[in-house]
Amino acid sequence: MWADLLAIGIGSLQGATFAAQFRDRRLDLLGVAIIGIATGFGGGLLRDILLGEVPKALLSNWYLPVAVGAALGGMLLERLFSRLQKVITVLDALTLGLFGAIGTTAALSAGLPAIPAIFVGSLSAVGGSILRDMLLSVPVALMHVGSLYAVAALVGTTTLVVLVALGVTITVAAVVCVALTVTVRILAVLFHWSLPEQRRLERLPRLVIRRRSRSAPTPAPTPTADA
Amino acid sequence: MWADLLAIGIGSLQGATFAAQFRDRRLDLLGVAIIGIATGFGGGLLRDILLGEVPKALLSNWYLPVAVGAALGGMLLERLFSRLQKVITVLDALTLGLFGAIGTTAALSAGLPAIPAIFVGSLSAVGGSILRDMLLSVPVALMHVGSLYAVAALVGTTTLVVLVALGVTITVAAVVCVALTVTVRILAVLFHWSLPEQRRLERLPRLVIRRRSRSAPTPAPTPTADA
Amino acid sequence: MWADLLAIGIGSLQGATFAAQFRDRRLDLLGVAIIGIATGFGGGLLRDILLGEVPKALLSNWYLPVAVGAALGGMLLERLFSRLQKVITVLDALTLGLFGAIGTTAALSAGLPAIPAIFVGSLSAVGGSILRDMLLSVPVALMHVGSLYAVAALVGTTTLVVLVALGVTITVAAVVCVALTVTVRILAVLFHWSLPEQRRLERLPRLVIRRRSRSAPTPAPTPTADA
Repeated sequence: MWADLLAIGIGSLQGATFAAQFRDRRLDLLGVAIIGIATGFGGGLLRDILLGEVPKALLSNWYLPVAVGAALGGMLLERLFSRLQKVITVLDALTLGLFGAIGTTAALSAGLPAIPAIFVGSLSAVGGSILRDMLLSVPVALMHVGSLYAVAALVGTTTLVVLVALGVTITVAAVVCVALTVTVRILAVLFHWSLPEQRRLERLPRLVIRRRSRSAPTPAPTPTADA
Repeated sequence: MWADLLAIGIGSLQGATFAAQFRDRRLDLLGVAIIGIATGFGGGLLRDILLGEVPKALLSNWYLPVAVGAALGGMLLERLFSRLQKVITVLDALTLGLFGAIGTTAALSAGLPAIPAIFVGSLSAVGGSILRDMLLSVPVALMHVGSLYAVAALVGTTTLVVLVALGVTITVAAVVCVALTVTVRILAVLFHWSLPEQRRLERLPRLVIRRRSRSAPTPAPTPTADA
Repeated sequence: MWADLLAIGIGSLQGATFAAQFRDRRLDLLGVAIIGIATGFGGGLLRDILLGEVPKALLSNWYLPVAVGAALGGMLLERLFSRLQKVITVLDALTLGLFGAIGTTAALSAGLPAIPAIFVGSLSAVGGSILRDMLLSVPVALMHVGSLYAVAALVGTTTLVVLVALGVTITVAAVVCVALTVTVRILAVLFHWSLPEQRRLERLPRLVIRRRSRSAPTPAPTPTADA
C-alpha cells in the first residue's frame, strides 16, 4: 500500500510537471489536479475496469488526496523538480516497474492467460501517461519515437509472466520485473535508445504482388523513387 | 427517472449547441447525435463503469431516443437556444447538481468511502463534458480557466457526503447538494468567478534546494528574470 | 472464433494503414502496434466493459498477437494494401457487419432492451475506429461527413433486433445483419452516399419564439442574412 501510494504520488507529480509545458493553454488549478489524478490513477483504473473490478483507488480515502497534493505540489515546485530531473526519472522508472508488476500479478490472479496478462500489466504501467495525453489533447507521447518507456514495461511484465510460468514465486518474479523495467528505462534514457519509426517496404518484389503473399519479403537494397 | 431523462436531454442539447461552434469541421447528423449521447450519457456511463455496474442508461429504451432527439433538436433550433442562453445555463446548472447528487448517492450506497464518493459524484456531473471535448479533439474545457463548473459540482457533492456523515437523510442532503451546486455555478457565471491559472513558485529560497524540502515555501516577493 | 480473429486482424491492419498517413508524426513501431490493437479490439472492449464483463479478447492468448502481427504487417506492406484498396474496403465492411452482429447478440443475451442493444452493437462495430482517432488525437472520422460507416452498422443492428423481436432465429438475423451492413457500406462507398452536414434552421418563424415551442418548424425558404 505504501508503494502504491508512492507510485501514485510520483505519477501525479510527473503529470503536473508535464502539464506545466502547456502554459499558454491557461490550465487552471483544477485542470492540474485532474491531470495529476489521471496520470497517477489512469493505469490502475484501466487495469481494474478491464478485470471487471471496482478500482482499488476508489476503495480508500488516501489515494485521491495524495494524487491531488502531489499534482499541486509538482505545479508549485516545478522549478525545483525540473532541477531534480534525474531523481524524477529514476523514481518514474520505479513507478513504471511497480505498476507493471502489480498489474500483471492482478491479471494473472484474475485468471487471465499469459499474453493478456502482459498486456494488462503493461497498460497499468503506461495507462496514466496515455490518459494524460488524451485529456490534454496532444498526441500520445509513448506512441512516438522517444526513449523506450512502454517497451521497458513490456520487458519487465513479460519476464514476470515467464518466470511465474517456470515456477518462480510471484514475489521474486515481481522484484525481477521491477528491476528489469527500471534498468531498461534508465539505460534507454542514458543512451537514447528508441524504437525505429514506422516505415513501409518501399519496393515490393513483383513476385509478392503476383502471389498475393502475406509474408514480409526481405527488401532489396534498391533506390526508391518517392521521398 | 423523469429528472434523469430531463438531465440527459439537457446535457445532449448542450452538447449539440456546443458542437455547433465547429461548423468548419463538417460534423454530420450522426456526429451531432454522438456528441449529444456522449454529453448526456458520459457522466452516468463513467459512474456505472467505475462502480462495476451495467450503465443504467442501457437498461431502458427511453434514454437513447431522448438524447438523440434533444441533440438533433438542439442542432436545428440552435438560434432559438442561443437566444435562451440564460435559461439553458440555469437548466445546465440543475443538470450538474442532479448528476452530482445521483452519482454521489450511488457511490455511497455501493460502499465507497467518503472521498472516492465525492470523486465519482463529481465525475458523474462533469464526465459528459469531458467526453464531449475528447471526442471533438479539443482541449477539455473544464480544465481551463473559466467560470467554475466542476468546482460547483465538487462543492455540492462534498456537502452531500458531509451531511450524510452527520446523519442527515439522503433526500435532504441531495436537495442541499443540488441547490448549492446550482447557486455556486450561477453566481460564478454572473460574477465571472474562476480558479487561478496554473503557476509555479518562480523563486525558491536557497534553503529549500539545499534541504531538498518537500513543503511549499512562501514565495518572497522578488522580481523574476523570466517571463 | 475464427471470424472473430479475422475481424480483429482486418481491423488492426486498417488501423495501421490509417496511421501511415501520419508519417510526419514520428509514430514508432510500438505506436503502430497500439493503434492496431485499439482499432481491432476497441469495439469489443467497449462492448464488454459496458456489459460489465471481462473483455473476451483478454481470455485467450491468440487475439493480441494477431492484432499486433496484422498491424506491423499492414505497416510494412502498406504499398501492397493501398493497391488492394477495394479488397480491404470489402473486408472492412465485413468486419463492421460481424462486430455489429456479435455485439448486438451479446447485448440482447445480456438482457438489454432493444434500443440499448442496437447502441451497444453499433458501438462494437465502430468503437475501434473512434478509439483509433482519439489516440491519434485527430477528429473522430465517423462523426464527419463521409461515406456512411456507422449508419451501415446501425441499419444492420437495427434489422437484427427487429428480426429477433419478430421471432426469427438469432443465426438468420445475424446473417441478415452482416449482409445488410456490407451492402449499405459498399453502396455508400460506390455512390458517395453521406449524411447531411449539421445545420440549424436559419430562420425561426416568430410564432415559435413566442410560444417557446419545442417542435421543429418547417423552415420557410427565405434568404438568410448570415453565411
